[in-house]
Amino acid sequence: MPSDTLTPDAAARESGASSVVIVGAGFAGLTLARQLSRRHAVTLLDRRNYHLFQPLLYQVVVGAISPGEIGVAVRGQLRHRPNVRSLEAEVFDFDAVGRILNCGAAGGAAFSLTYDTLVVATGMQDHYFGHDDWAVHAPALKTLGGGLRMRARLLGALEAAEAAAARGAPSEEVERLMSVVAVGGGPTGVELAGAIAELSRTAMAGEFRYLDPDDLRIELVEGEPALLNGFAPRLQKHALRGLERLGVNVRLGTMVRAVDADGVTLAGPDGEMRRAAAVVFWAAGVRPTELAGAVAAAYGITPERDGRLAVDGRLALAGHPEVHVLGDIAAYVDPRHGRLPGVAPVAKQQGAFVARLLDDRTRAPFRYRDWGRMAVIGRFDAVAEILGIRLSGRLAWLVWALAHIAYLVGFDRKLRVMVSWGWRFVLGRYAARLITEAR
Amino acid sequence: MPSDTLTPDAAARESGASSVVIVGAGFAGLTLARQLSRRHAVTLLDRRNYHLFQPLLYQVVVGAISPGEIGVAVRGQLRHRPNVRSLEAEVFDFDAVGRILNCGAAGGAAFSLTYDTLVVATGMQDHYFGHDDWAVHAPALKTLGGGLRMRARLLGALEAAEAAAARGAPSEEVERLMSVVAVGGGPTGVELAGAIAELSRTAMAGEFRYLDPDDLRIELVEGEPALLNGFAPRLQKHALRGLERLGVNVRLGTMVRAVDADGVTLAGPDGEMRRAAAVVFWAAGVRPTELAGAVAAAYGITPERDGRLAVDGRLALAGHPEVHVLGDIAAYVDPRHGRLPGVAPVAKQQGAFVARLLDDRTRAPFRYRDWGRMAVIGRFDAVAEILGIRLSGRLAWLVWALAHIAYLVGFDRKLRVMVSWGWRFVLGRYAARLITEAR
Repeated sequence: MPSDTLTPDAAARESGASSVVIVGAGFAGLTLARQLSRRHAVTLLDRRNYHLFQPLLYQVVVGAISPGEIGVAVRGQLRHRPNVRSLEAEVFDFDAVGRILNCGAAGGAAFSLTYDTLVVATGMQDHYFGHDDWAVHAPALKTLGGGLRMRARLLGALEAAEAAAARGAPSEEVERLMSVVAVGGGPTGVELAGAIAELSRTAMAGEFRYLDPDDLRIELVEGEPALLNGFAPRLQKHALRGLERLGVNVRLGTMVRAVDADGVTLAGPDGEMRRAAAVVFWAAGVRPTELAGAVAAAYGITPERDGRLAVDGRLALAGHPEVHVLGDIAAYVDPRHGRLPGVAPVAKQQGAFVARLLDDRTRAPFRYRDWGRMAVIGRFDAVAEILGIRLSGRLAWLVWALAHIAYLVGFDRKLRVMVSWGWRFVLGRYAARLITEAR
Repeated sequence: MPSDTLTPDAAARESGASSVVIVGAGFAGLTLARQLSRRHAVTLLDRRNYHLFQPLLYQVVVGAISPGEIGVAVRGQLRHRPNVRSLEAEVFDFDAVGRILNCGAAGGAAFSLTYDTLVVATGMQDHYFGHDDWAVHAPALKTLGGGLRMRARLLGALEAAEAAAARGAPSEEVERLMSVVAVGGGPTGVELAGAIAELSRTAMAGEFRYLDPDDLRIELVEGEPALLNGFAPRLQKHALRGLERLGVNVRLGTMVRAVDADGVTLAGPDGEMRRAAAVVFWAAGVRPTELAGAVAAAYGITPERDGRLAVDGRLALAGHPEVHVLGDIAAYVDPRHGRLPGVAPVAKQQGAFVARLLDDRTRAPFRYRDWGRMAVIGRFDAVAEILGIRLSGRLAWLVWALAHIAYLVGFDRKLRVMVSWGWRFVLGRYAARLITEAR
């Protein structure tokens, strides 16, 4: 039983402001909170105190950029929005009839919250397809904490390999420490594998006395017959060739059978094989956070097979126009683009759309404006489809770099990331190769 | 029993290189490793993979700078030093007769190492004066991991206080969450207390809806009758007034009697008092790392009362000219300056001195060149004694900022810290206010 009920400020109530509660400070939630007019008394809830620019999280793993360059305190982004309050809290469940959320605050105390409009935009979590015990051996890239642990594991394995080689340990031991397996050939897996290959080629060269950085064996495992599902075949092939040129061993049509402390068991076109590896990363699947299930239960909705929640043209639940679901957990079928993917531009546009909707600035249904998609492979190499134009190589890389810097929140973050990339891409230096976590 | 014995490269041996083993990649050890000529086959051991610019660690706690701005991968600093190998390892003990170190490598395997010259420069650890149980409630500022945990605790308490105030929790609960106690009035405690006060005054202003940042109660507790022991009385008074102007409650002549999960018990001029506080930081004492004791035991030395090891003019142990002890754990009495303090300039000069000594570029005993000391209080306010000239206020702050940027390793780090400071000191923004750790 919650101990306190939190209502909008009395002042806001008297002025007739409607109460909007947003759950999740990702791209959708933060965009919405920043764009809603002062007619609304807004509460933005998130389990963490920071908004994460997830598209660059894989660069934290290789030490190319620091957490502070892609994480930004939510509170600081709402400085000039006096109608928005930001609270670090976890949402447990909903009372659809009373329009109440039940939450646990930072510090542990329970409280509840009333709303006129509810917006749920809590995003995705890792999905191991019934093998949650793999998580400890194959961490996934969804949170900053996870990224830092992956960084510690990768850099720690290289340190251990150098020490093992120095004292003349058996070659199998050194090989296992120098083996990395990335599972999942979507943009995250491709970018992660490419970044690790670049790290070993440039930053690591000349820094080890017993290891040749080229000894680092990187496997990229994908169940489908091609990388980057959804990209044009020409770009898929470019990505494959680019990764192979960097020394990544790409295994297509290959499934993961087992993951344990010593490595992975794979099943591919050539049958089953065992790969001893000290570093295994998981980028093979995501599913909606638990809260999507709680929303479905409370509002009498049946989730889609993948756990997402169907929304109408107003991005609201059927029969519940006061409940909006945005971003990755929303299953929205766009008239032109079909079912929308779980990417940052969709989430941002949906947040901005609901701000217009709640401020009566639009009545038209949501339409996704698809600028395209891209994935970086290595230094000065990427693939991109921008407004139907297919680019690969240097030009695609330039578009990728400019787009990501433009999307970063805050001028100081743009400047920092540019400094980091200058050092990394021009000089091959990685600024943040620190092992600060347990491995 | 170690499984492997690690010797210098055969090639280095044949060329007649002497084997120098350096334990600790702090200011002394890293300076020495970088300056030794190629006549020496050098092994640099550290438990961590990074060198830490400790003088700015307190700024990580308030989110003003990122770990990557003050931590630098040791390996990257030795890129152009092929005669130096860097290994992540922990040293357990020494065999003085056989000139052997016994170590545990990253990854856990034991190995041993032979040396012609041994250099021990492992620095200090926290000291709770017989109350190690206080450590969990009052973390100390010696490692990057500790600084990140302190950041999570400080920022987490403010988040919890906002949530508590929003749901109308009792005022004592909010007050406890908004209470910070820093123990120790040396430079670390002064700088930490001032930085927290600045954070609440500038960055926090306008970001909370239920809390006035001035409600943050900061106590700085010092047992002596003055802050900044060793500074001129005029500068001590300037620091005291500066902190009080920032709202810090400075308690001089006050001892800590107890630290627990709810706060601290203090005993001062007005008797014993209890202070409920969610955030307690320890900056009251340091002692040599355990390895100093292992050195003393192996080489038949009696440590000083504070645990440091006495060294002669060559910074070597009496009777063991092949064993040098540098930096904070060395007890060296300088002919002009008396017993040297445990500060970065002493460590750097000692590292450079031993490099000259081992390369036969000097025979004179070590002489410390004392440029002075400084401590920052707040934005554009510091105290400094430079070559006997006493400065306070803006000019001292400028000298402090320039000196610290000059001392940072690497041009990119200098640039990053300047960007961070520009944002912080000019705009009052804190770039890295992320809670990434458990609290």
